[in-house]
Amino acid sequence: MRVARIAHPEGVAFVTVEGEGEDLTKLTAVEVADHPFGGTPSTGRRWPMADVRLLAPILPSKVVCVGKNYAEHAREMGGEAPASPVIFMKPSTTVIGPDAAIKLPADSTRVDFEGELAAVIGKPCKDVPAERASDVVLGYTIANDVTARDQQQADGQWTRAKSHDTFCPLGPWIETDVKPDDDLEIRTELDGEVRQQSDTGLLLHDIGELVEWISRVMTLLPGDVILTGTPAGVGPMTAGQTVSVSIAGIGTLTNSVANR
Amino acid sequence: MRVARIAHPEGVAFVTVEGEGEDLTKLTAVEVADHPFGGTPSTGRRWPMADVRLLAPILPSKVVCVGKNYAEHAREMGGEAPASPVIFMKPSTTVIGPDAAIKLPADSTRVDFEGELAAVIGKPCKDVPAERASDVVLGYTIANDVTARDQQQADGQWTRAKSHDTFCPLGPWIETDVKPDDDLEIRTELDGEVRQQSDTGLLLHDIGELVEWISRVMTLLPGDVILTGTPAGVGPMTAGQTVSVSIAGIGTLTNSVANR
Repeated sequence: MRVARIAHPEGVAFVTVEGEGEDLTKLTAVEVADHPFGGTPSTGRRWPMADVRLLAPILPSKVVCVGKNYAEHAREMGGEAPASPVIFMKPSTTVIGPDAAIKLPADSTRVDFEGELAAVIGKPCKDVPAERASDVVLGYTIANDVTARDQQQADGQWTRAKSHDTFCPLGPWIETDVKPDDDLEIRTELDGEVRQQSDTGLLLHDIGELVEWISRVMTLLPGDVILTGTPAGVGPMTAGQTVSVSIAGIGTLTNSVANR
Repeated sequence: MRVARIAHPEGVAFVTVEGEGEDLTKLTAVEVADHPFGGTPSTGRRWPMADVRLLAPILPSKVVCVGKNYAEHAREMGGEAPASPVIFMKPSTTVIGPDAAIKLPADSTRVDFEGELAAVIGKPCKDVPAERASDVVLGYTIANDVTARDQQQADGQWTRAKSHDTFCPLGPWIETDVKPDDDLEIRTELDGEVRQQSDTGLLLHDIGELVEWISRVMTLLPGDVILTGTPAGVGPMTAGQTVSVSIAGIGTLTNSVANR
């Protein structure tokens, strides 16, 4: 099942998505009563997907990210992958939805895309063993862990580089029926050219390990998002370009790039 | 004016605090209608402060912290202070109030106190020049940037070490009338013994600079908290101890320390 959040003519709603594929003209948004964490009974209101606007599928209270979680990416960053997951955070103010513009900060000379699989937490939880992670994950969406590479290198700590407004595109929806431990292809295209191509089976620390590691530290709340790390091939974006991250079985997250 | 948040017999409320000093038996909590960001008209309900429980004065959407912002502390950590502020974040799930217990994680062998001045943002803002920072700051409170020092050193990135549940005591209230650029004494005591003693005039990057630096990156929202860095003297806490951070003109934030 696909769970999305949309802007429709009268407001904003959580919806489920009827139909297959990614052609919006063949999809229908069906309004969810209340919040999708409690189930997805419909209100009966429906819109053709082409008549509404997809928003970030969730507004997280926190976005927890994992560094260097694909071996090839760790190598391209000039090192080996750490034995344990290294985590950092992006503030909720970084989140934008599909088709919104990633805004390049004036004080960075290099802003990179980082296509990633994102897990959306569905239940409050703490100290979740790896083998029970699927009980607390509502589903998966796609993220772009946009990074001001020059600021990341200058600061040592990654927070500033990762935290500019618009630096966390999320979407297009939450797919509740995929299993990332199966090999889902993940692919990032810049202006239609493939720049990252890997699959989620190559995550060094899989979803179970990440949920266990992070929930050992902090209580996770419904809507919290875990960005699982990016594969090799990261590179800079410039104003006017378009970046798309696709994951098999989930969909495609596309954003434009613009100067602030 | 002091703005606090309390648990009273019928629920939770924002209040202003009537009276001077820190003796709770001489203070009165006066309920604020709505949210204190919009002004503090009273509902007329009042409680003796000794009959209610102080909570963290705000539940922030984000806690942004600054590393190595006192020269003596940068030196004790084995380096010089960076020329520009280095920021990191703590998740909102770290926040606890006065007198709540800091819980030591089982997987850390050294958990340190770090007493800090905290600025509470009062208005949504972005790109605030230093000289206008006071327009967006509602007031100041006290924080303890509790840190699993071993994990900080192991990870390189500071997020995990700083993000355990209970690792951000805040309180006892927000004081709207202090000016930290004046030299406010800041002092941390462990079981009554003074361990940190400095003053807020020694911040390498003052409140104006910090608000400018952070709001250049991210939109700040009402209730967001900026932890301004800790002075020299950080050290470990063990279960059964009590830690107090005092700032002249604000008050004292006291927390017990317990095993999880």
